[in-house]
Amino acid sequence: MLEESVNENISCPLPIQHHDKIVLGHGSGGKLTHDLIQRVFFPKLGNRILESGDDSGIIDLDSGVKLAISVDSHVVSPLFFKGGDIGRLAVCGTVNDISMSGATPLYFTAGFILEEGLDHQILTNVIESMEKAAKEAGVLMVAGDTKVVQKGKADGLYITTTGIGIVPDNVNIRGANARPGDVIILSGTIGDHGIAVLEARNELGFTSGIASDVAPLNKLVSEMLAECNELHVLRDPTRGGLATTLNEIARQSNVCILIEENRIPVKPPVMAVCEMLGYEPIYMANEGKLIAIVPEKYAAKLLETMQNNRFGSESVIIGTIIEKPQGKVLLKTQLGTTRVIDMLSGEMLPRIC
Amino acid sequence: MLEESVNENISCPLPIQHHDKIVLGHGSGGKLTHDLIQRVFFPKLGNRILESGDDSGIIDLDSGVKLAISVDSHVVSPLFFKGGDIGRLAVCGTVNDISMSGATPLYFTAGFILEEGLDHQILTNVIESMEKAAKEAGVLMVAGDTKVVQKGKADGLYITTTGIGIVPDNVNIRGANARPGDVIILSGTIGDHGIAVLEARNELGFTSGIASDVAPLNKLVSEMLAECNELHVLRDPTRGGLATTLNEIARQSNVCILIEENRIPVKPPVMAVCEMLGYEPIYMANEGKLIAIVPEKYAAKLLETMQNNRFGSESVIIGTIIEKPQGKVLLKTQLGTTRVIDMLSGEMLPRIC
Repeated sequence: MLEESVNENISCPLPIQHHDKIVLGHGSGGKLTHDLIQRVFFPKLGNRILESGDDSGIIDLDSGVKLAISVDSHVVSPLFFKGGDIGRLAVCGTVNDISMSGATPLYFTAGFILEEGLDHQILTNVIESMEKAAKEAGVLMVAGDTKVVQKGKADGLYITTTGIGIVPDNVNIRGANARPGDVIILSGTIGDHGIAVLEARNELGFTSGIASDVAPLNKLVSEMLAECNELHVLRDPTRGGLATTLNEIARQSNVCILIEENRIPVKPPVMAVCEMLGYEPIYMANEGKLIAIVPEKYAAKLLETMQNNRFGSESVIIGTIIEKPQGKVLLKTQLGTTRVIDMLSGEMLPRIC
Repeated sequence: MLEESVNENISCPLPIQHHDKIVLGHGSGGKLTHDLIQRVFFPKLGNRILESGDDSGIIDLDSGVKLAISVDSHVVSPLFFKGGDIGRLAVCGTVNDISMSGATPLYFTAGFILEEGLDHQILTNVIESMEKAAKEAGVLMVAGDTKVVQKGKADGLYITTTGIGIVPDNVNIRGANARPGDVIILSGTIGDHGIAVLEARNELGFTSGIASDVAPLNKLVSEMLAECNELHVLRDPTRGGLATTLNEIARQSNVCILIEENRIPVKPPVMAVCEMLGYEPIYMANEGKLIAIVPEKYAAKLLETMQNNRFGSESVIIGTIIEKPQGKVLLKTQLGTTRVIDMLSGEMLPRIC
């Protein structure tokens, strides 16, 4: 029924343009990024681990140890914003990517690309922020590298972090594990990070008061694992926002994801800015939120567990997994209509992380 | 005796300037890089693993598995040069860092920072080169990330790679393990990579014919481990060259390193370019060479093993470890004098890797 009722709303997506040049959208985390990965990276460097499409690659060592490995380059602009900075982002982003496989993040590496002329004090502040975030998350930096490029060949500094974690026995959390009947829980309000960075760029023209949500989610996840041993999917909706992340999962699991707009928490100032600028909150980046997909029978108890953690205090159920149309995400709007929401196309806010 | 005879040649090093701004030299791999690490990174992010000062951090997992983890950001300019490119460099550099702990490199991650406007074909060529190098070394990419920054905020592309390897049981190879009486073996000619990149920048004004030595050394190392179970130190003399690498080891092991200039193999065109430009080959970057420090009784057999590998065919013994002056590197020149050689100070060739 549902499938039929939305069929006319399913827009026929335009074919992705095959650019001769790299455009900002190739770094959006949305359609163009996926296209680049599929066309350029996977044919040459692809393998079963890399192509899983999850936030970290899972490695089975001969010894029986299961490692989770992730990587993220951080190019956020500006370097500092309300609630965080590139250093906190680099540590938390990596901690969260590892956590989304249910693994315990333990170690990380960091490669710094510094621009000639960068103030020492700025670097020191970023390092202090990394220290604080690493302590908060309980992770150790085990390798580092520093390169310097000429003035004008970077923008202050870039940090690439790789995370290393251990997947506990019997944990199998992947984007491909969502099943019809499962419930989708979101750990709090969306769009905060995107708006905080936008404001730090002085692009708003007023003060929204919104701080980035950037935070390490590993303790929240460990509490969730202790409560529920049948978590199907965990994912943090960063670049590309909730809509892109859900689309990834719908495709990986070959299911349909149905969410309800009026259940998705958005802070009023975030909503106000989005309306003013023509953005949709579901495409805005988050850096301290996760979605969990679990069998319905665990949902209520898991929700309670999440709400008891400071980073999940505003957790809510936002939808369910249904069978069809496979690979699609449907949004039941506040007006009662249902529309297909796609991945982010193009680039909304470059260098958001 | 030796100590006294060289005392007058030991220059009193100038105190390192504490710059307010980041300068290119902070990325040289030499004195300024070490200073930055000691003053800014270690006080905040330091720990036993990070501060070992080796090419990779060694992690003892609870399960008894020993991981070797390394990271390197690659910003070489230009992206392509005779004998290699940034892609081959990124894979081989990481494979070699892992190998220098005696570990078997198995996996790597890669974070790409792309400049808006980069030709797709350039990216494709780099990825193809990474594929080839990864196959040659037998390593798999297990996680990747792509960011795009605005035109002028990067220089084509930067790649940060993290390597993951397993340290075999009973292998304990560290920069701190050199002992008086040990012999130093160098796996071939030095300076090739530095000159190849310099030539690709059209800074020579003529064709030297020199190709970069960039190569994965993991198979060479595994053959060395099979031959000798008492390797004390392995290190690849990359940024900062042979002189900087040996200084690091002399400090880590608290010994003196004595090498003989006329034993160090340098290709005639490399020597010619260095003489012309006022460079010393011992400070030039290499990307496919290693030094091994071993008890003398193993040296002859190990040398033979190395010479039988294509990447070690020109291996030679270049010196020995003596007791004093501790933390110093002495070069016996072709004229018979002995001089102290220090780490690279300042920046000779920015963005060499």
